[in-house]
Amino acid sequence: MRKSTSIGLISGFALIVGAILLGNTWGKFFDPASLLMVVGGTAAAVVVNYSFEDLKRAIEMTQDLFTFEPPSLQRRLDQITNMARTARREGVLALDRHIDDVDDDLLEFGLEMAVDGMGEDEIAGMLDQRIAEMKSKRQLVADFFTQAGTYAPAFGMIGTLIGLIQMLNNLDDPSKIGSGMATALITTFYGALLANLAFLPLGDRARKQNELRGKAHYITREGILAIARGDSPRMIEQRLGFLAEDEIDEEAEDAEAEDAGAESTEDATDAQPAAAAA
Amino acid sequence: MRKSTSIGLISGFALIVGAILLGNTWGKFFDPASLLMVVGGTAAAVVVNYSFEDLKRAIEMTQDLFTFEPPSLQRRLDQITNMARTARREGVLALDRHIDDVDDDLLEFGLEMAVDGMGEDEIAGMLDQRIAEMKSKRQLVADFFTQAGTYAPAFGMIGTLIGLIQMLNNLDDPSKIGSGMATALITTFYGALLANLAFLPLGDRARKQNELRGKAHYITREGILAIARGDSPRMIEQRLGFLAEDEIDEEAEDAEAEDAGAESTEDATDAQPAAAAA
Amino acid sequence: MRKSTSIGLISGFALIVGAILLGNTWGKFFDPASLLMVVGGTAAAVVVNYSFEDLKRAIEMTQDLFTFEPPSLQRRLDQITNMARTARREGVLALDRHIDDVDDDLLEFGLEMAVDGMGEDEIAGMLDQRIAEMKSKRQLVADFFTQAGTYAPAFGMIGTLIGLIQMLNNLDDPSKIGSGMATALITTFYGALLANLAFLPLGDRARKQNELRGKAHYITREGILAIARGDSPRMIEQRLGFLAEDEIDEEAEDAEAEDAGAESTEDATDAQPAAAAA
Amino acid sequence: MRKSTSIGLISGFALIVGAILLGNTWGKFFDPASLLMVVGGTAAAVVVNYSFEDLKRAIEMTQDLFTFEPPSLQRRLDQITNMARTARREGVLALDRHIDDVDDDLLEFGLEMAVDGMGEDEIAGMLDQRIAEMKSKRQLVADFFTQAGTYAPAFGMIGTLIGLIQMLNNLDDPSKIGSGMATALITTFYGALLANLAFLPLGDRARKQNELRGKAHYITREGILAIARGDSPRMIEQRLGFLAEDEIDEEAEDAEAEDAGAESTEDATDAQPAAAAA
Amino acid sequence: MRKSTSIGLISGFALIVGAILLGNTWGKFFDPASLLMVVGGTAAAVVVNYSFEDLKRAIEMTQDLFTFEPPSLQRRLDQITNMARTARREGVLALDRHIDDVDDDLLEFGLEMAVDGMGEDEIAGMLDQRIAEMKSKRQLVADFFTQAGTYAPAFGMIGTLIGLIQMLNNLDDPSKIGSGMATALITTFYGALLANLAFLPLGDRARKQNELRGKAHYITREGILAIARGDSPRMIEQRLGFLAEDEIDEEAEDAEAEDAGAESTEDATDAQPAAAAA
Repeated sequence: MRKSTSIGLISGFALIVGAILLGNTWGKFFDPASLLMVVGGTAAAVVVNYSFEDLKRAIEMTQDLFTFEPPSLQRRLDQITNMARTARREGVLALDRHIDDVDDDLLEFGLEMAVDGMGEDEIAGMLDQRIAEMKSKRQLVADFFTQAGTYAPAFGMIGTLIGLIQMLNNLDDPSKIGSGMATALITTFYGALLANLAFLPLGDRARKQNELRGKAHYITREGILAIARGDSPRMIEQRLGFLAEDEIDEEAEDAEAEDAGAESTEDATDAQPAAAAA
Repeated sequence: MRKSTSIGLISGFALIVGAILLGNTWGKFFDPASLLMVVGGTAAAVVVNYSFEDLKRAIEMTQDLFTFEPPSLQRRLDQITNMARTARREGVLALDRHIDDVDDDLLEFGLEMAVDGMGEDEIAGMLDQRIAEMKSKRQLVADFFTQAGTYAPAFGMIGTLIGLIQMLNNLDDPSKIGSGMATALITTFYGALLANLAFLPLGDRARKQNELRGKAHYITREGILAIARGDSPRMIEQRLGFLAEDEIDEEAEDAEAEDAGAESTEDATDAQPAAAAA
Repeated sequence: MRKSTSIGLISGFALIVGAILLGNTWGKFFDPASLLMVVGGTAAAVVVNYSFEDLKRAIEMTQDLFTFEPPSLQRRLDQITNMARTARREGVLALDRHIDDVDDDLLEFGLEMAVDGMGEDEIAGMLDQRIAEMKSKRQLVADFFTQAGTYAPAFGMIGTLIGLIQMLNNLDDPSKIGSGMATALITTFYGALLANLAFLPLGDRARKQNELRGKAHYITREGILAIARGDSPRMIEQRLGFLAEDEIDEEAEDAEAEDAGAESTEDATDAQPAAAAA
Repeated sequence: MRKSTSIGLISGFALIVGAILLGNTWGKFFDPASLLMVVGGTAAAVVVNYSFEDLKRAIEMTQDLFTFEPPSLQRRLDQITNMARTARREGVLALDRHIDDVDDDLLEFGLEMAVDGMGEDEIAGMLDQRIAEMKSKRQLVADFFTQAGTYAPAFGMIGTLIGLIQMLNNLDDPSKIGSGMATALITTFYGALLANLAFLPLGDRARKQNELRGKAHYITREGILAIARGDSPRMIEQRLGFLAEDEIDEEAEDAEAEDAGAESTEDATDAQPAAAAA
Repeated sequence: MRKSTSIGLISGFALIVGAILLGNTWGKFFDPASLLMVVGGTAAAVVVNYSFEDLKRAIEMTQDLFTFEPPSLQRRLDQITNMARTARREGVLALDRHIDDVDDDLLEFGLEMAVDGMGEDEIAGMLDQRIAEMKSKRQLVADFFTQAGTYAPAFGMIGTLIGLIQMLNNLDDPSKIGSGMATALITTFYGALLANLAFLPLGDRARKQNELRGKAHYITREGILAIARGDSPRMIEQRLGFLAEDEIDEEAEDAEAEDAGAESTEDATDAQPAAAAA
């Protein structure tokens, strides 16, 4: 399980909350008006920036950041090799019957084009366009969080400026200077915390997940083109197995650690000598 | 309706004004001289930077940021497919009679070249140049706001420095230190607010709108070239429908939500199976 | 007239000076020693950075920032079309007699190569090298001001640190703390003002002017190559007119505004239908 | 020995600790709670950012930063030249028997492909993919430290904000203001120190080591392709010796300095005339 | 003479020292412990970053920043033209006898390859590799100073934090607050001064000198290839003279200013009509 995103978020906020609770003024740190100022200002800036459609999409994709499982390259590799064997044995048209077994949109889309008899170059062009489209859509959520992480500290500072100006105009009672200034600093604190613990790391996380998706897309693309070209299943398995090697090693290790005789381990051990012999 | 730009601006300023009104010193926050300093200084820096022609153009294009409707890819697609059908049935020259029905400059410009019998490469070169020109013109307004968003906080700080130096030279009456410093901070507040709530988000907004325009341009370009090549209308519809897919999905959803039997929904449902069958 | 650079500079400084004069401590803002510190320090850093030759050249080119008129694309276009007509009618060699009429170095240089019978590729290579050379030379002044705009605030801060350290070591007379701190802040004020009102905007201005020059160079290059290829004058006029379209529109508008029957307007109206018919 | 990484780290921290010990308040600088705040916050942000697999890998690779020896290009060169001689004398297939002597994965992988009779282009493609893969894996540790170096000062500031807010709410006893503020600043101090003495320099160090690895990979790649092409061993030695020249010079100098008759010096002197004669 | 680097450094430091001496607390500005902190910390961070070999090389190359004379393009041009004449008259092999007269490593290296009869493409490949190698080595010193310029202000701030924390823990004697804070600020002052007057400008200076070297390398490369191709000496002189034009103009001006009949002026006047006639 790859829950590092939630674990990082929760333990980070727990650490900060713990540090605050240790002091005897923890009540001062929870100020709904300040939170509204920072979150509301950041949201307003982001809303100026994005259309509501994009915002809706970005929010929908946010939960993927937490539940994301990197695509199993081994499984993808097996499906492609099976399809290549079918195409070898029964002809490319025979793939039509098996397309429904495929659980990956891109692979399905590519195999349909191969069945339709489109040329390799044309299939490559359509796949590249689709992959670029998928990537640019996913990029939205990374940009969204990076933007929020830029605006949050700015609105933290704006809130502090408002608080400071209010306090400085009320210097009559010097005993309130300290608490006025403390309240003013709360928004800067919220802005810095939201940006550095949530928004900016989530933005980078989204970028990293997109890179992993990009790798699976690249392997799928190469597999579809090899099938369309009519490459031998063994050669496809070797070549793609080499591309996927690292991740398969890792999955194998994971699987071994959890269950020493699981199916995915066998697959991995099948694939590795092939890759090594390439 | 995609009014997120105005909504973001208005709600953001409302939030800030609300936060100020809650304090008992709200009168201190509206200081015309400070506003003049920040806005005037930013304007001066921007005027050094741009020629008056560019400034005029940037200001004219600013209202587009608020009224912008993303170009309907479905409508564009229909026009191109219709033109392709006409060209198939009656020859490319027949397009000449229908060019006036087209409401898009780029499409009209491209079809005229196709009617004139120019080669595909030459048409592509001219279209690319024109698209680059349109993009670089639109880029002006994005750069304009990004620049303003860089200079506004700087002039906010310059105003604060002036206020601080004045206050520090007038320390005789300690009761005025607080209000002097408060006044000095007002310009920093204005600069930060203008930059982070208006200028920088508007600059990014302009960039995003240009990307959407770029997508419509790309589809138009591909359509014109396909017509010039004499591709079959069905193939053009499939291929461009695939390029436009996401936006059409969305428009279809919007249309369904508003009116379940509208024409654009039918178009969308026509286009989707075609795209899926590609 | 495109005097926005001087107007921006003058009105910006007037605004700041005005704001200072309104206070009753304006005398404190003019401190020659502080100005020497900021300007001298920035100059020293820039002198470490550049050779004296480059500095001399950068200063010479600075006045161009204020007097720059964007090259008239229409005029350039007319000259190229005339040359193309001559080359058509009387052969490329006949251009030799007319080269002296040309008032643009790049056009002259290119036409000489065409007269010498050099191939299109070789001419293109030589033109590209010369254009790159001209661009990199002009880039010098943009980089120069951007550098100065980076060092000025740094030396402002260094001056303030010196002032603060001096003041903090002289705390015996508390009545001088305020004015000591005020004096210390003057250098930061000078550094921020010079950078944000003069150096950085002038650097960006230089970059924008270079882009306009680059466009004229590109049109000249395309024209020379078309003449060397022997393209028809009408085709050259159309194609280049299309490239120059926007600026010509603008010049035409300007001309109309000033004098409704001027020659350049006619040229513009000649060129536009041609471009539209392309 | 190239121990500059550890020496830099140790002497840097020693310098700072020394500076602290010279003051009479050194006990105040060691505050476990503050350290936990900065290190824990940075760790949390980094954990949000990376999957646990990546973190494990980054930590494993961290020790390489300290023990890294730049790959001996001379040794690599000798192996390649020997292999080329064998391939010349006994045919490419004969390499199969010698592959086990090779201690470099990339060279082994490439020679196996050459023995298998794959074409030069295909071998180049596979090698490039593998090199890119190795590079992107190594990049992980550089990015990891650069990220940590970005978050550490941010969490230092967050800790200081918490401390300031707590202190400002406890102004009743003015004698504690100083020490409260001092404690608040400790986290900023920790964040700045960790980032500027450890994280950021280690990130850059990792980048530099990757460049050296990249150079060895490039030489290996060129050697494998030359063997696959059947180039003469002398030509391979010359060409690669030229690529490796600088590093060999240096190794030779080192060797001479340490032991004037060592084997590697002879190799180097052998290689240099060859390279000079190229 | 191009001594702007030393002049800038000396006059900049003189200016700062002068400003300090004008105050009556100049003794406070020279604090060896603070200097050790900033310089030592910066050095430690840089040592973590670089291997000792790279540091040694960077320091060796630092003196070149002060003594650098831009390579005389005219002299390089003359040598290449002479070699081209010899090759024309007596054959390429005859160059072998003259190679020792050449005082430029790159030219010698290239001519040797031409004498050896290597093809143009192969010579170009080897030259490009060697030029890239020379450039990347020179880049080291630019990066070194830019890094030092990044770490110096950071360690200045770290020193100030240490000083502040010490002072805040010693508030018992209020009369020492001022001088304690002044001492704390000294390290920030040192860091800012070293970075902005020395390290960052020297880094940029190194970059600019590398660009000039790169231009000489490019001309040498083009000359060697032209000789290998067997181009006519006149054509080589014209083409390279055009590439070198600006610098030759300048050298000529310099020479004229110093000695109105010097040899280099004649060369320059010889070269210019040739370039103009090209």
